[in-house]
Amino acid sequence: MLQTETRAQLPEPTLRRLPWYLSYVSMLNAAGVEYVSSTLIARELDVDASQIAKDLSFLDIKGKTRIGYDVASLEQVLQDFLGFKKSHNAVIAGVGSLGSALLADSGLQRYGLNIVAALDVNKEKIGTSIAGVPVYDMSRLADIRRELSAEIGILTVPVEVAQEVTDMMVGAGFKALWNFTPIRIRTAGEIVVSNTSIYAHLALMYNRLAQSGI
Amino acid sequence: MLQTETRAQLPEPTLRRLPWYLSYVSMLNAAGVEYVSSTLIARELDVDASQIAKDLSFLDIKGKTRIGYDVASLEQVLQDFLGFKKSHNAVIAGVGSLGSALLADSGLQRYGLNIVAALDVNKEKIGTSIAGVPVYDMSRLADIRRELSAEIGILTVPVEVAQEVTDMMVGAGFKALWNFTPIRIRTAGEIVVSNTSIYAHLALMYNRLAQSGI
Repeated sequence: MLQTETRAQLPEPTLRRLPWYLSYVSMLNAAGVEYVSSTLIARELDVDASQIAKDLSFLDIKGKTRIGYDVASLEQVLQDFLGFKKSHNAVIAGVGSLGSALLADSGLQRYGLNIVAALDVNKEKIGTSIAGVPVYDMSRLADIRRELSAEIGILTVPVEVAQEVTDMMVGAGFKALWNFTPIRIRTAGEIVVSNTSIYAHLALMYNRLAQSGI
Repeated sequence: MLQTETRAQLPEPTLRRLPWYLSYVSMLNAAGVEYVSSTLIARELDVDASQIAKDLSFLDIKGKTRIGYDVASLEQVLQDFLGFKKSHNAVIAGVGSLGSALLADSGLQRYGLNIVAALDVNKEKIGTSIAGVPVYDMSRLADIRRELSAEIGILTVPVEVAQEVTDMMVGAGFKALWNFTPIRIRTAGEIVVSNTSIYAHLALMYNRLAQSGI
């Protein structure tokens, strides 16, 4: 539906704001609101109205003069555009504390991430299920990926083995890695790497708190 | 120990890289390595060596010519600088799927975040404990914060009530809010807001994957 060219031109800050708009219009839709103006979105989310109009211009939707955007359509278009309506098969490596926590979070499923298998080296965990997801021996990574057509590998292993497991994942043919470890991982070849460093965000928050003098 | 002026001058990209260095030197320390050069860190983390030397110059530590940094001291200085050695009391609002997951993650504790209480509106959860943390009625937010000297409020409530609970948290006197909801929250007055939008990161990854054509 969307042109590859359109996607390619999308600035990253816009892509970071789109989920805010989606959350807001989903709320409006659930509340039965039919139309919303960029001025109202701007006021509620504290983003400049002209910026919102510009961001939404990347989508295949037009607002009506003096009425605004159709809420249900805008929600649908944003969900499609952000990839949340499509199911993306993923495998998670490392079911310690954080890995198990992510498996238990139903939110990921709602946003299109379908974790189909978990991998670990702990003999007591292998063969069990966590939140309904089977845990396999880490050595079976490549087979499991292929059998279950998983494109995304989620990395929640201890930092000591993060690079080793990254190399295994690259070798196994994953197209994207979602790295939750606090270390920077190196990859060779064509693979998308996305970092969500929860602990690094903590450091940023502590630092701002210390600086603020509140 | 550190001058406030030093902290204030620290660029955010440097602050984002410091946790990588910490993870790496912690591994070296655990492995019994005594010294490390910025050249070696550079190679292992794929960051420019001169950038690393510049980043580390913000810390109160000097490397020795031809030997490098003392690993144990560097680990200590980085942990102190990033605030991971100090205990920061926090209260979490919303113990649904994501909130419960965060409570179960022992990593946060290791990085100095001490979640002392949880809050929810669900009568079946109030009075119970999740991962050893007691769950109280959301209406007791301000009292609980004061009694337990909590400075940080963690927001893992449904988006529909995110702004309402934000307003309650600001009113209750929290100094920092860590927002895990996918919506942008508005705050008035002096309060640090840190956003960790896991689902927005998913959208970025899906988009890069679609663009990459891998």
